[in-house]
Amino acid sequence: MRQYEMAELSFRGPEPEGKATDVKLTGTFTLSGKTMTVPGFYAGNGTYKVRFYPTEAGICTYKVEGAVTGEGTETVEPAASHGMVKAVGTHFEYEDGTRFDPFGTTIYALVHQEKALVEETLKTLSTAPFNKVRMCVFPKDYSYNKNEPPYYPFAKKADGSWDVTAPNPEFFDNLEDKIVKLGDMGIEVDLILFHPYDRWGFASMPQRDNLVYLDYLMKRLAAFPNIWWSLSNEYDFTPKKTQKDWEEIEQAVHDLDPYHHLESCHNGFHYWDATRPNITHSSLQVKSLAVVAHERARTKKPVMIDECCYEGNLNQSWGAISGEEMTARFWQAVAQGGYCTHGETFLDPDTKDEDSAVVYWAKGGKLIGKSPERIAWLRNIVESLPGPIDPQTGRFGNFCDLTDKQLDAFIDQVPEQHKFFFGSMRRLTEYEKGILRAGEYNYAGQVGEKAYFWYLYRQTSARYEILLPENHTYKVEVLDTWKMTRTTFAEHASGSVQVRLPGKEYMAVLATIEE
Amino acid sequence: MRQYEMAELSFRGPEPEGKATDVKLTGTFTLSGKTMTVPGFYAGNGTYKVRFYPTEAGICTYKVEGAVTGEGTETVEPAASHGMVKAVGTHFEYEDGTRFDPFGTTIYALVHQEKALVEETLKTLSTAPFNKVRMCVFPKDYSYNKNEPPYYPFAKKADGSWDVTAPNPEFFDNLEDKIVKLGDMGIEVDLILFHPYDRWGFASMPQRDNLVYLDYLMKRLAAFPNIWWSLSNEYDFTPKKTQKDWEEIEQAVHDLDPYHHLESCHNGFHYWDATRPNITHSSLQVKSLAVVAHERARTKKPVMIDECCYEGNLNQSWGAISGEEMTARFWQAVAQGGYCTHGETFLDPDTKDEDSAVVYWAKGGKLIGKSPERIAWLRNIVESLPGPIDPQTGRFGNFCDLTDKQLDAFIDQVPEQHKFFFGSMRRLTEYEKGILRAGEYNYAGQVGEKAYFWYLYRQTSARYEILLPENHTYKVEVLDTWKMTRTTFAEHASGSVQVRLPGKEYMAVLATIEE
Repeated sequence: MRQYEMAELSFRGPEPEGKATDVKLTGTFTLSGKTMTVPGFYAGNGTYKVRFYPTEAGICTYKVEGAVTGEGTETVEPAASHGMVKAVGTHFEYEDGTRFDPFGTTIYALVHQEKALVEETLKTLSTAPFNKVRMCVFPKDYSYNKNEPPYYPFAKKADGSWDVTAPNPEFFDNLEDKIVKLGDMGIEVDLILFHPYDRWGFASMPQRDNLVYLDYLMKRLAAFPNIWWSLSNEYDFTPKKTQKDWEEIEQAVHDLDPYHHLESCHNGFHYWDATRPNITHSSLQVKSLAVVAHERARTKKPVMIDECCYEGNLNQSWGAISGEEMTARFWQAVAQGGYCTHGETFLDPDTKDEDSAVVYWAKGGKLIGKSPERIAWLRNIVESLPGPIDPQTGRFGNFCDLTDKQLDAFIDQVPEQHKFFFGSMRRLTEYEKGILRAGEYNYAGQVGEKAYFWYLYRQTSARYEILLPENHTYKVEVLDTWKMTRTTFAEHASGSVQVRLPGKEYMAVLATIEE
Repeated sequence: MRQYEMAELSFRGPEPEGKATDVKLTGTFTLSGKTMTVPGFYAGNGTYKVRFYPTEAGICTYKVEGAVTGEGTETVEPAASHGMVKAVGTHFEYEDGTRFDPFGTTIYALVHQEKALVEETLKTLSTAPFNKVRMCVFPKDYSYNKNEPPYYPFAKKADGSWDVTAPNPEFFDNLEDKIVKLGDMGIEVDLILFHPYDRWGFASMPQRDNLVYLDYLMKRLAAFPNIWWSLSNEYDFTPKKTQKDWEEIEQAVHDLDPYHHLESCHNGFHYWDATRPNITHSSLQVKSLAVVAHERARTKKPVMIDECCYEGNLNQSWGAISGEEMTARFWQAVAQGGYCTHGETFLDPDTKDEDSAVVYWAKGGKLIGKSPERIAWLRNIVESLPGPIDPQTGRFGNFCDLTDKQLDAFIDQVPEQHKFFFGSMRRLTEYEKGILRAGEYNYAGQVGEKAYFWYLYRQTSARYEILLPENHTYKVEVLDTWKMTRTTFAEHASGSVQVRLPGKEYMAVLATIEE
C-alpha cells in the first residue's frame, strides 16, 4: 500500500446468491491508530474487492468480513503523489498542501468510444495542458453522438429496462481503466454521474435505481485519488428528476463517499446552489464570465466555469467560439480568482454523416484548435505565481455586484468629488446591472501583494495606468496572450505606472514583486 | 420661403430696454389655412428675428408684433429636402415619409474648437458615413478637454456668475452656423442641452436660469429642420439637478418647441424612462448591446445606442474598443431593429500634453479608425433593404426578455420534447438572466418577409442553418462584415438552408426575397 494511492484487496468467492449489489462486504482498516470501515463490492466473475484509500504512511491492519473474509497487515509507504484535491477557501489544493490550479477539458463520452479512439484521446491528453477531464459515466445520445457504447453499465431485465442490481463488470472495469490512466498523467476525473442526453433510459431510471447505482459506483470508485463527483451535466435540463431527487442524490453521494471527494453540480440555466454544505465548489455553465468574482464572494468556495462554450465551428452557438475567445475566457476566469474548462467542437462542414463524426468535446481524438497551446502558456504563468489568485477589488465594473450596504461603505471612503458618480449607481435596476456587469467588467487579479495582473480582454489601450503598492517594488511585464510573448516594461516600479501597450486586443499586464 | 427649410424674418430695431430674453416678439404665420404663432428673439446688434418652419408649400401670410413689427405674404416653394426626422413606431422617417436610418457619430465639443479645427472636422464629416452628430451646446471640461471655448453663451454678472438674460450673439451665431453646415451635408444635429463635464458653471445654474436659457435657445433653433433635442449627456451623473428638475426640463423643451423635434435623454448608469410621453426614442449608454430588442418592445419607440464606447486607444475602457468591436456594435444594434452611434478616441500615447490633444470624440479633426468605412458599408446595405428592420423573434437568447406569461405562451406552442428545456428557463434569477442575455444573444433581424439577416458576431460556425419562409424564394448571401465582401451562397432558396461559412468571427448572412 502507498499513501494517496488506491489499495485494493481482491478475493475469490462464490457467485452472490442474491443480487450483486446486495452483497454484504466490509473492510475495516486501522492506520496510525485510526480505524475506518469501508464497503466492498462484487466485481464479477467470482471476484470480491475492497478498496481503501490510505491518507497516511504507516502500518495498516485490515479485516475483511462478509461474503468473503480475510485479514492482514501491510506497510503503507510514504506518498509518491499529492493525494486527493480538496477545496481550501476559494481555491484548490492537493491533500499534501500542494496548490492545484485546474485547467480542465471536456470529453463527455470518452469511455464510450472504441478502443483505438480512446487510445488516441489518451495520447492527445498526454501532451495537452489539461489536468482535469469532465466525462460521463453513462453514454451520450445527442447531435454528433449516436454511436452505441462498447459496454452498458447494467444487465437488462426481461421487460427491457435496466437491472441496476446487475452491474456489468466490463463496463466498470473499462471506466476504471480510464480513470487510472488519466490519473497516471496527473489528470483529475470530474465524473458526471447523470446527464439528460440519453436514449437508453439511464436518465429516467426510478430514483430507487439511481441510489442503487450510486451505492455500487461509490464502492468501486471512492478510493481513487483523482475522482471528483459531478452530480450532473445540466441538471435542470433533465425532465425526470425533481429538485428533491437531486438533493437526495447530492446527499447520497456525500454519505456514500468515505473520503468526501469534491462534489459539484453543473447547470443548464439555473445554477445549482453552491452554498449547500455538501457542495465543495461551483461548476457553472455560463457564456459571460463576469460571474466569477461575484459567485466566489457569495459562496466563499472555488468557482469553476465548467462550460463556457467550445472552440469550434458548429452550427450551434455553444459550439462555435473562436480560439481567441476560448483563450480569453480562461484569462477572464483566472483573473477573477476562478477556473475555466476547455472543450473543442470542430466538425468537417462537408461531412454527410454528422452522427458518426468524431467531435472532441464528446468523443475525444485529436485537438486542432488554437486555444490549447495558449491555455498551456497561461497555466505556466499561473503556476509560476507565488500563490493562488484573488480578484482585485474596488474597481469599476465589479461595483454592480455590491449590495446597497457595501456600496454605501465604498462611497463613504471615496473623495468628495466622486461620491455623486458612484452614488448614481444606486439607481440601477437589476436589468441595467446585468447589462453593465457583462459589458464592462474588470478582469484584474492579485496574489496578495506579491503579484498583480490585469487582463484587458478586448480593450485596446495604448497607455494603461496600473496602481501598485508604494511599499514594494515590482517588475512590470506586458503580455500578449495571443502571441504568447512577455516583454519587460519596467523594473523597480511602484505606485501609479503608465504602461505602454500596443493598442490591440488580448493584452495583459503582470506585475511581480522584486524580493 | 421653402417647405422644410427654416424661414427667417429679420428686423432692425432699438436695443431692448430691459433684458434681451424678456423681449416681446411674435410672428403669426398662416399657411394653407393653418395659423401658427411662434416667438421671435433678439439676435443682438439691434437685430430682431422671427424664425418659422413651413411644413407645406403654398402661400404664407405673416404678421410680426411686439418689439418690432411687420407683415407680408410669401410663396412657400415645394420642398427640396425631406424635412424633420420623426419617430414612427420603432423607426425614424423624415416628414415626407422617406426612411431615415441614423448612423451617428459623437463630437461633444465640436462648436467649441478653433476655426481651423472645426473646418477640418466638417471636411471629415463631408465624406464620413454619418448622418447624425451628438454635440453639446455648452463647452466641455474633461480629460483631453481643457481648452477655453472661443465663445461663451452668456455675459457674466459682476459676481462672476452667468447672466442667462444676456445671451452672447456670437456664441449662438457660431452654433447655428455649424447646425446649418451640418444640415447642408444631410447631417442631423442631436443637440445636447446640458451635460455634467463643466468648470464654468453651466452644469450648476439655478433651475430658473436653465429655463430662461432653454426658452431663448428654442426661439433660435426650433425652426431648423435638422435639430434633435438631447436633454443631457449622462443626466444621472449631474450632481446639481434632481429628477424633478430633469422632468421640468423635459416638459419645457416639449412646450417651447412648436414643431416637436425628436426629444431624448442620455444616461450614465440609469436609463431615462423612454416611455414618458414627451420622449420620442431611447438614447442609451450601454456597453452590451443585448438591450435593443428588449427596450424596443418595452417602450414601443426607436432605440438608439448613443454611446457604446469609442474606437480608440485611451487608458479608459470606454475609449478603447477596437475597430472590430465598434463595427460589431453597429451590426448588433441594426440586427435588432435599433441604431448605434460611433465615436473615436485615439491619442498619441507619447503625448506629454493630454489636455491639448485633439481627440475626435470631443474635438473633431480627422478620423483614423477602422470602423467608419465598415459602418459605411453596413449603411449601404441597410439603405438597400426594402424597409426598416425589426428583430427576428422566437430564437434562443432573446428568451431572457420574455415575461413569465410570454414564456408560457411560447412553451405552449413548441413541440412536446422541447417544453421541458424552455420551461427550465422559468427558474432563472434576474442575475442569471443578465448573464445569459449578455453572453448568448441572437442578433437576427428581418424586414417583413422581404429580407432576413443574421449577424453572427464572434460565432465561428462553418455551417449555419437559417430558416426562411416556405412560400417565397430568396437569394442568400454570406457577408464578411470586416473584409466587406458579399458572396452569393444560394439563389431560389426557401425553408431550412444550411449556409456554408468560413468559420471565423464577424460573419453575417443576408437573405433577400426574389420578386
